[in-house]
Amino acid sequence: MSGLDEIADIGRDPRRGGYSRHLWDAADLELRDWFVARAESTGLDVERDRNGNLWAWWGAPGPDAVVVGSHLDSVPGGGEYDGPLGVVSALDAVALLRSSGFVPSRPCAVVVFAEEEGSRFGVACLGSRLLTGALDAARARRLVDADGVTLAEAADAHGVPARHLGADERALGRIGIFLELHVEQGRGLVDVDGPLAVASGILAHGRWRIGFRGEGNHAGATRMADRRDPMVAAARGVVAARDAAAARPGARATVGRIGVVPGGTNVIPSAVTTWLDARSGDDEETRALVAEIEERMRDVAAAEGCELVIAEESWSSAVTFPADLRERVSAALGGIPELGTGAGHDAGVLSAHVPTAMVFVRNPSGVSHAPEEYAELDDCIAGVVAVERILRELL
Amino acid sequence: MSGLDEIADIGRDPRRGGYSRHLWDAADLELRDWFVARAESTGLDVERDRNGNLWAWWGAPGPDAVVVGSHLDSVPGGGEYDGPLGVVSALDAVALLRSSGFVPSRPCAVVVFAEEEGSRFGVACLGSRLLTGALDAARARRLVDADGVTLAEAADAHGVPARHLGADERALGRIGIFLELHVEQGRGLVDVDGPLAVASGILAHGRWRIGFRGEGNHAGATRMADRRDPMVAAARGVVAARDAAAARPGARATVGRIGVVPGGTNVIPSAVTTWLDARSGDDEETRALVAEIEERMRDVAAAEGCELVIAEESWSSAVTFPADLRERVSAALGGIPELGTGAGHDAGVLSAHVPTAMVFVRNPSGVSHAPEEYAELDDCIAGVVAVERILRELL
Repeated sequence: MSGLDEIADIGRDPRRGGYSRHLWDAADLELRDWFVARAESTGLDVERDRNGNLWAWWGAPGPDAVVVGSHLDSVPGGGEYDGPLGVVSALDAVALLRSSGFVPSRPCAVVVFAEEEGSRFGVACLGSRLLTGALDAARARRLVDADGVTLAEAADAHGVPARHLGADERALGRIGIFLELHVEQGRGLVDVDGPLAVASGILAHGRWRIGFRGEGNHAGATRMADRRDPMVAAARGVVAARDAAAARPGARATVGRIGVVPGGTNVIPSAVTTWLDARSGDDEETRALVAEIEERMRDVAAAEGCELVIAEESWSSAVTFPADLRERVSAALGGIPELGTGAGHDAGVLSAHVPTAMVFVRNPSGVSHAPEEYAELDDCIAGVVAVERILRELL
Repeated sequence: MSGLDEIADIGRDPRRGGYSRHLWDAADLELRDWFVARAESTGLDVERDRNGNLWAWWGAPGPDAVVVGSHLDSVPGGGEYDGPLGVVSALDAVALLRSSGFVPSRPCAVVVFAEEEGSRFGVACLGSRLLTGALDAARARRLVDADGVTLAEAADAHGVPARHLGADERALGRIGIFLELHVEQGRGLVDVDGPLAVASGILAHGRWRIGFRGEGNHAGATRMADRRDPMVAAARGVVAARDAAAARPGARATVGRIGVVPGGTNVIPSAVTTWLDARSGDDEETRALVAEIEERMRDVAAAEGCELVIAEESWSSAVTFPADLRERVSAALGGIPELGTGAGHDAGVLSAHVPTAMVFVRNPSGVSHAPEEYAELDDCIAGVVAVERILRELL
């Protein structure tokens, strides 16, 4: 995949391994420049919408378009394929169609959504949520990154006026069908021994910021019995979250990020913040999981003399992709298996507004959001051919 | 205390509260400049030794000197008194003696030890450990801060040639007696209702860096049963450390710092590092505590499918300050109570080499290593008068 090769050196993370590419950092800006150049050399016209998403149009932009794409940003220390594989495959498929002389009967665009992973401002699918209005613009403008920079400040600094962030009826109204190809983030295709699958749906999922507040003090001079240590409370909370999810079939709960104030080796912390990622089969099950975790965390916080503060950072209802489009996609590829996923995607956000489909490409490692994420070249090429065939069917 | 007032705005930490002053950062450099100016205006001659410690001499440097001082650096988000109170009190006491016409019969110096808290390079009492040879210079040069800068690089950049770091027989050989005044880091003086105490000894203590290695993966796509999550293992380890210490009278175990790779909300981490601070009454008890914590952590790591890697970052044997010097100090002050402490100090490092004493000043909050650390002005002044009287007795 020449597209992936071209960007293989952008945003490597020497400390974590893999890639760290976050909204409007040096890597993200370089990736955006690469996308514009690649799209223009394919004969597409690139525009940036009011939320920082990029659209590369084949011919004049218009209504009822078939839009295909994904994202270029990564989690911290993420893999090479999550996001970029979908963008590169879309560009390659359009190039194939154009060079074959195919004449589409409706508009077509390749899209790059901004900040899908939410690694800088904490809200996943930021670009598509702003576009669809799923995320309130006023709340979005107040989002803060790890350096204290607000999304409003960052947007203004990168030529995306913060006052124009938010629901974009014009951009959304042009989408007739949205298609996203993505590397699989589990071992489903390894188990069925096939290169491609069509997505059946996405688990309900959300993120919660959970703060434990205790009393900072000296690690040596403070007796164990006199402590209100939020690190111990948070640790018990992490275990409680895992135990709650493990007891519920299909549920997942993860704490992948933790912040400690002040964070000194010889200091009992005054506050510890954990971020909970929780998912389950449907909305009700997920809400019940989080309610149980919250109750367990309140108990352990109280037992450690700490206060608990919970804030919901994002929520995504369970998604079932439309059956007729799934069948059409599968038929265009001669019949491929269906797989569900626990991973959120811009396709999940858009599916509340427009008919949406996803195609997964086999990942032999089963690992994602980590440097070990992988897809064989043959499977990636099968993905490009699949997008080309689906576009031929839909256009 | 005009000295504390003069430095009250240096190194404030708006995010954590309190102060963050770490070796050779902007705040530390400003504090060093302040110390040089303050000492010189008191008529003292300042020299910097080969390990970055500052010495302000009253008259010619010489053998059998009475040296009094402390440190100016802080933990992240630390209090106003831990360290600076000892330095300011020493300078004020020497100024009082000089202005009274007192003529010392032996050399005298006020000292500022570098990086007592170990907040930048991870080793507490860095300056005094280097001076005494308690820390191997080759190992010290390889210490790395959070930005990947080695101590050798930082030292060279600040005019302290890294090749000269290490045991300094000349500087150590000049010390006849070392005295450190310090804000109390517990409620011992509140309980006995007095402003000052003389230290009986210091608990054995050390720091261990404990890494849990698992498998990074996607927080949504990875089933709970398929995980090797080092965050869960580390959380169970934090609780195990606390439980082990709570079951042993007088023991303390704290995890105040944690590092997560990669640290994304929607990512199961691949590795989590915790820093353990453990202390107990004597060396044997402390070693037994740490051995039990290590065993418990190995069990929970194995149960979570993770590997455990433990490295000792520092070790300080229990200290009992010499009884004759304690009695001399107490007598000079008309008889004051004795208190032990769980907190490490440069005085503890030096006590292995020279007769050493410490004086504690009452802390009504009982809190230290946090912005709430406090001492009443009257008690601080009593501390200055105490140092002046002790110096009068010893000089």
